[in-house]
Amino acid sequence: MFCMDLKELGEFGLIERIKEALGGPMPDGVLGIGDDCAVLPQAGGMETLVSTDMLLEGSHFLRGDIPARLLGWKSAAVNFSDIAAMGGRPLGSFLSLGLPAGLDSDWMDAFLAGYKECSQYCGAPLLGGDTTTSQDGIAINVTVIGQCQRGRSRKRSNAVPGDLICVTGPLGDSAAGLKLILERHTLSERHARLNRASQMAGQAGHDAEAGHDAEAGHDTEALVERHYRPVPRVSEGQALAATPGVHAMMDISDGIASDLRHILKASGVGAAVRTQDVPLSAELRRVCAQQGWDATTLALTGGEDYELLFTMAPGTEPPVPYFVIGTVTEEKNLVWEGSSQDFIGFRHF
Amino acid sequence: MFCMDLKELGEFGLIERIKEALGGPMPDGVLGIGDDCAVLPQAGGMETLVSTDMLLEGSHFLRGDIPARLLGWKSAAVNFSDIAAMGGRPLGSFLSLGLPAGLDSDWMDAFLAGYKECSQYCGAPLLGGDTTTSQDGIAINVTVIGQCQRGRSRKRSNAVPGDLICVTGPLGDSAAGLKLILERHTLSERHARLNRASQMAGQAGHDAEAGHDAEAGHDTEALVERHYRPVPRVSEGQALAATPGVHAMMDISDGIASDLRHILKASGVGAAVRTQDVPLSAELRRVCAQQGWDATTLALTGGEDYELLFTMAPGTEPPVPYFVIGTVTEEKNLVWEGSSQDFIGFRHF
Repeated sequence: MFCMDLKELGEFGLIERIKEALGGPMPDGVLGIGDDCAVLPQAGGMETLVSTDMLLEGSHFLRGDIPARLLGWKSAAVNFSDIAAMGGRPLGSFLSLGLPAGLDSDWMDAFLAGYKECSQYCGAPLLGGDTTTSQDGIAINVTVIGQCQRGRSRKRSNAVPGDLICVTGPLGDSAAGLKLILERHTLSERHARLNRASQMAGQAGHDAEAGHDAEAGHDTEALVERHYRPVPRVSEGQALAATPGVHAMMDISDGIASDLRHILKASGVGAAVRTQDVPLSAELRRVCAQQGWDATTLALTGGEDYELLFTMAPGTEPPVPYFVIGTVTEEKNLVWEGSSQDFIGFRHF
Repeated sequence: MFCMDLKELGEFGLIERIKEALGGPMPDGVLGIGDDCAVLPQAGGMETLVSTDMLLEGSHFLRGDIPARLLGWKSAAVNFSDIAAMGGRPLGSFLSLGLPAGLDSDWMDAFLAGYKECSQYCGAPLLGGDTTTSQDGIAINVTVIGQCQRGRSRKRSNAVPGDLICVTGPLGDSAAGLKLILERHTLSERHARLNRASQMAGQAGHDAEAGHDAEAGHDTEALVERHYRPVPRVSEGQALAATPGVHAMMDISDGIASDLRHILKASGVGAAVRTQDVPLSAELRRVCAQQGWDATTLALTGGEDYELLFTMAPGTEPPVPYFVIGTVTEEKNLVWEGSSQDFIGFRHF
C-alpha cells in the first residue's frame, strides 16, 4: 500500500504529503499508513487487516502484452500478498473496474476467471466492488480484507539487532520474466515494422526471427509465468506469524534492495546481506548465463517476486521453507557482503 | 457499491456477470455483493462493513468544473454514505489515487484538504491507500470500513408489507444543482466562443451575459453546494439502526425512483409512494418555479442526494428527523400516487 511513483515528488514524497495532510493521531490499536496493511483491532481478540492497490492501463500493464486472465490473477495476487505479509488470513476482496466503452467482453470474462482463480487459491471470495465507464484506459482497484489474532500481525518495525534476515523463496525470477517480456515486445514491434515494410514492397512478410521465438524454452516460460502469475504466500505468512521468534515481515514487491530498507528504517536498525546466499532458481541461473545478465542484481533489485522477507531470532525454526540471507545489525547501514556494488530497488517508472 | 454504468450491458448487467463469474457460497454470516456494504462478522459480537467506489475523470467529474476541495470531500462522502446506509460507524478509509504526471500540486493539496474535512466530519481517519501515475486522467478509488453491532446492520431486504417508507431529508436539491452546473458550463463555453469571435474581430471581449451570473443568488448556490458537498448521514444511520422498528435501509444515490426499486426487489414487496409527500427544500421550489423545472420529477429521479431511504413499522418513532412518503405493499409493483407519470431513476450516462 501507498507505494508511490509520481516523478516530481519522488517515490515516497507524495505519501509523506498525504500523511501530513491527512494524518493525525490514530485510534487505540489502529495501525495506519506505512505497513503492508492497515490493522484495526476487533472486540473479540482479533485484528482486521486491509490493503488496497490501483492498477492502471499504460502505467502498470499494456492490454496487448498481458493476457487478461493473468492480469485478473495478478490484480488479486499482489493484494493478497499484503495480507500474507502481515501474517493474516484473507477473508475477501473488493474489485473496482473502470472499463472503456468498447471493451471486448471476452477480455472481461478472462479477467474475471483469473481473478477468481487467485481468490479461490487464497480462500477469499469477492465481496463487492464498483464498476464504471472509463473514458481512457482500464482502471483496476482491488481492496483486500483479512484478519489475524490480536498482536500476531507482523509489522515492518519489529526487527531487532542479531535477527537473521530470511526470504521464503528464490528471487529475481519475476524481474527476469519482465525483461524477457519487454524484449519480446521490442522484437514483435520490429517484426511489425519489417512486415509493413515488406508489404509495402509487395512481398509476403517473412518473419526472419520467428525461429528465435520458437526456441524460447521451458526456462524463459517459467520466468515469464513467475512475473505474470506471482503466488501470494498466504499459508507461509500465517505460519510465520504463528511462530514467536519471527519478528518483522513484509512482501517483496520492489526488490529487497528497496524493501529491506523499509524494515531497517521502520525498526531503526541496519543489515548485512550475504549476496551469495540470496536464493536463485535454476531457471534464472540458466537464462542469465545465456543472456549475459547478472542474476544477483536481478534478485536484489528486481521487483514483484512476492516472496516474504522476514527477520527472526537465531534458533527459531519456522515451519515453512526459508533461506537465511543476512543479519540485522545495530549499526544503521546496509552492507552487501560479497559484492563491491550497492544495490537500489526497483522504481516504478 | 457495484452501481454499474457500462452502456452495452445495461445498468446491472455487468454486476450480474461478475456475480455469476465470481459468486459462490458466502462464508457464514457474510453478506457479499448486492447491498450498500459487504458485512463480515467479527468474533466479539460486532460486524465489519466495507464499501468501495471508483471515480474517474471524464466519467464522474470534469477537472475544470468541480473545485478540487469539493471533489475531495465528495469522494469520501459518497463512500461514508454507504456505511451510514447500513447503520454503521465509520472507522477509516483507504484512498487510491492515479495522477497524471503534470498535475498541479495545488490541486492535490486542495483535494486532500477536502478529503480530510469529510473524514474528520465522519470521525474516520485515512488508514492507507495507493498512489500511482496515470497516463490519462485522474483516477480515484475510495474504500471505507466501518462497524456495527452484530445483527444491527440494516439491509435492503428487510422491508415488510405495511411498513412506512421514509426519507431523512428533502430530495432533488443535488439534481437541480447539477442542472445549474451544466447550464453554467454551456454558458461559459458560449462565452468563450463569443470572446474568441470578438477577439478575432479585433474587439475587446464583452461579456454580454455576465450580469446573469452575478444575479445567481443564494438559492442556486445552495443547490450547487448540495450537489458538490453531500453530507453523509452517519449519525442518522446509526440512530436508525439502533431503532428496532426500522427495517430496510439504503442511501439515495440514484434517486428513489431507482433506489426504492432495489429495496422492493430485495424484499419481494411493492410500494405506494405519495408524490406530494416527498419533501422539497424551499430553495428547490423557488429555483424550479423560476426555471420552469418540475421539482417532484427532480426529487424522485435525480441522484446524489445521499439522504437515507428506510422503511419502518407503523408506530416506530426514530430519534432523527424523517418524512413519511409512502407505504410498503404486498403487491409487487410501484405506484406513484398523486401523479399520472411513471418515474425512472437516474442513469449514470
